[in-house]
Amino acid sequence: MVEKEPVVGADGEFSLIERIRKLLPPVREPATMGLGDDAAVIRQADGQVLLVTTDMLVEGVHFDRSFMSAADLGYKSLAVNLSDIAAMGGIPTCCFLSLALPPSLSLSWFTAFMAAMVDAAGSFDVQLLGGDTVAADKMVIAVTMHGRSAAADVVYRKGGQPGDRLYVSGTVGDSALGLRLLRQGQKPESERSEPESFLINRHCRPRPRLQLARRLAEAHLASSMLDVSDGLLGDLRHLLAADGRGAEIFLEQLPLSPAYRKMQSFDDLEGYLPALTGGEDYELLFTVPSGREAEAAGIAEAAGVRISCIGSVVRGGGIQLVMPGGGRMAADDLRGYDHFAAAGSKR
Amino acid sequence: MVEKEPVVGADGEFSLIERIRKLLPPVREPATMGLGDDAAVIRQADGQVLLVTTDMLVEGVHFDRSFMSAADLGYKSLAVNLSDIAAMGGIPTCCFLSLALPPSLSLSWFTAFMAAMVDAAGSFDVQLLGGDTVAADKMVIAVTMHGRSAAADVVYRKGGQPGDRLYVSGTVGDSALGLRLLRQGQKPESERSEPESFLINRHCRPRPRLQLARRLAEAHLASSMLDVSDGLLGDLRHLLAADGRGAEIFLEQLPLSPAYRKMQSFDDLEGYLPALTGGEDYELLFTVPSGREAEAAGIAEAAGVRISCIGSVVRGGGIQLVMPGGGRMAADDLRGYDHFAAAGSKR
Repeated sequence: MVEKEPVVGADGEFSLIERIRKLLPPVREPATMGLGDDAAVIRQADGQVLLVTTDMLVEGVHFDRSFMSAADLGYKSLAVNLSDIAAMGGIPTCCFLSLALPPSLSLSWFTAFMAAMVDAAGSFDVQLLGGDTVAADKMVIAVTMHGRSAAADVVYRKGGQPGDRLYVSGTVGDSALGLRLLRQGQKPESERSEPESFLINRHCRPRPRLQLARRLAEAHLASSMLDVSDGLLGDLRHLLAADGRGAEIFLEQLPLSPAYRKMQSFDDLEGYLPALTGGEDYELLFTVPSGREAEAAGIAEAAGVRISCIGSVVRGGGIQLVMPGGGRMAADDLRGYDHFAAAGSKR
Repeated sequence: MVEKEPVVGADGEFSLIERIRKLLPPVREPATMGLGDDAAVIRQADGQVLLVTTDMLVEGVHFDRSFMSAADLGYKSLAVNLSDIAAMGGIPTCCFLSLALPPSLSLSWFTAFMAAMVDAAGSFDVQLLGGDTVAADKMVIAVTMHGRSAAADVVYRKGGQPGDRLYVSGTVGDSALGLRLLRQGQKPESERSEPESFLINRHCRPRPRLQLARRLAEAHLASSMLDVSDGLLGDLRHLLAADGRGAEIFLEQLPLSPAYRKMQSFDDLEGYLPALTGGEDYELLFTVPSGREAEAAGIAEAAGVRISCIGSVVRGGGIQLVMPGGGRMAADDLRGYDHFAAAGSKR
């Protein structure tokens, strides 16, 4: 009998990252953070730090050109990286783009894609300073984004204490519902209902929460923070893993958009699943020390972004979901999306 | 009759980059160089600059796992980016890796690949500080490399003056011959002749010329510089394009390795083609003001790297090849390799 050789797809993305981490020597100066947060942190001569994050998007895995416009994809490729800089409390400065393109791709599609990315960069005051362009069967987009911050203001994933309040910005789950609508059918934009348009727009045009994050960071109000890209529960696990903490989440307090509420029924947990595990919300998930809730509310108001307290950090591991009726359940089996674990299948 | 829609593969990579450049606003402070050189240049608070370069390697286009080992590929993915930092006269500091992997890739291959990359990073004193890992049908490797330099020491592609001597480090054309051998057959390593092993090693394990480049930069001896990745003539055109200059190259002065000389016959131009257009040499191509040749020789000796004067920069456009017999020909029709122009075909 031949034993099957272990493959990279077997254990999911985070196990692979863990394998890479084990091969690496400890991070040393001037870097203070390498793998394991939303961005690397590198000390600069003037008391500032350089933040660096990089994301790779693959056609057929992360996006589908059949239902995503060139302009939306150009915008979103930049926005997801801006969101990582936001999650560290940073100000984005410049970016680099490596692009694999099928040679048969139409030049007009390419130009619309690039124009939207350049336009988005300009509107966030980010310079596109370099990259690489290569041929491939499928489109691959790799963006590296730089940001800056005062060293003392950087917010890490690590830092949430038992008793800290758990907050999320905006609303969650919209992007997953928007993607579901896009997958279901190619309804022309003019025939979409208002909730449909809203949800699809949330999927295609995520808003990186740079202002809110920056204010939270400068006020030293967020004890830990990341952005929700793999699903609320999945990212919450990353936040808690850094400290070995647990959390309780009150489902009634999840910020759900009117469009989301219209699309889902809430008889049981099912209705909450897109909000809990859907992914690609690019909202901020952060903790605030108990007693500073009013400050947080003030900052959110000044930034013009809704924030919602959805629960607390608790001592000990695991995430408990508190149902609207008051019942509790462990969230252990509810996983965020993992492109590796789901390899070959579609979300 | 339906007109065929223009596609990105029609005009080659450099036309695409030109299209991107046209969409971009001018580079502004703190950046002083964006697209158009081996690395972007960003001014820092302490008189230093941050150099940033990014490269994307696609399976089946830039490498083939059937004849390239995991360790060689891990090493080379890093080396080609180090070479770009060298070409600016910089000192590499840290890097970021985005990796698309087929889920069916064996874990042992992946681990050998990563271990070689981490090992190479360590030996060049470079920290691997972050990245992204995603699933895809084919492997894609995107490395972003950071370097530093004193602002005054950076060497750009632009700057070569008529009369400047044209130099290349090491030997050229070996990598192309090595790749040809790898493609021809899967001869086990133990059965390779010494020249075969040499050439294959030159393809799989390029040596970034960091020490030499750094010394040339600090001595302000190179008036312009880049690294030879697209083929000597192709990259020479990039060097000259920045200034609207021409060049003459003496074929007899091309630095060819003994292995190269053994593999090729030199009855006509044919024998020189791999050296002129082969690509992936990762040697330095640079110009030195006339009269400073002895200084250049001294620096090369101190760095332990051979350099060869292969010709001069001349007024006016075009590259003239001077044959061993003294005859001249225009090099206009000899192109470096372009993955887009050659899409679908193999080098």
